[in-house]
Amino acid sequence: MAHYSRLSKIVIDVPEADHDRELAFWSGATGQQLSRFDRHPEYHGAKLPGHDMGLLVQRLGDGPGRVHLDIHTDDLDAEVARLEGLGAEKVEQMHAWWILRDPAGMLFCVVPDPAGTLNDGNAQRWD
Amino acid sequence: MAHYSRLSKIVIDVPEADHDRELAFWSGATGQQLSRFDRHPEYHGAKLPGHDMGLLVQRLGDGPGRVHLDIHTDDLDAEVARLEGLGAEKVEQMHAWWILRDPAGMLFCVVPDPAGTLNDGNAQRWD
Repeated sequence: MAHYSRLSKIVIDVPEADHDRELAFWSGATGQQLSRFDRHPEYHGAKLPGHDMGLLVQRLGDGPGRVHLDIHTDDLDAEVARLEGLGAEKVEQMHAWWILRDPAGMLFCVVPDPAGTLNDGNAQRWD
Repeated sequence: MAHYSRLSKIVIDVPEADHDRELAFWSGATGQQLSRFDRHPEYHGAKLPGHDMGLLVQRLGDGPGRVHLDIHTDDLDAEVARLEGLGAEKVEQMHAWWILRDPAGMLFCVVPDPAGTLNDGNAQRWD
């Protein structure tokens, strides 16, 4: 069955010691109030103006700081299998999503979106 | 005078040894043909489907691999000064753009866009 995916979020991962300054900086840089997520309070985020793309800042227990990307999909298993076929490797499942490693060793996440969220107008269809 | 800026590009920086596999991976992951830039052939890029946001892969001479963000603006000097006021530090000017370091030490770029490209509909206005 077909499924959809798209790159949906930019996530700035920040060690505890730098978190508050970094959150204030990227709020100011983008002009967006990055609000804390109720269910996952280690994240603050907002949609970026002029984009259907979100920016998140994640508080890490420890480093290293980095930027990582989240791919959202309406079929987690099918999308993870597709990305493994392209050369990614599973690292671990966390909450509802998967952490994978790309061919250059950089981490990214694959995150399930509710059915009907992704479509031909806002995502890529995989048959 | 007012100016505009917005987060416009996600850039995956990849050491030479991993570049070709990484470029093929992210082309496949997003479903986008990432094309080489004529003027800066170390970059391949495309607009992301469903977003007014670009994804670039940059070939590095050496590591480390990382993801960095590009803020585009119609007034480079004013935007760099604004970001310095928020806590960023200048690292170096390269070609037409500036490399800055954010408060957590992560690099990002500030890139000039042609006048008239950014407006109230697609960017943040700074008075």
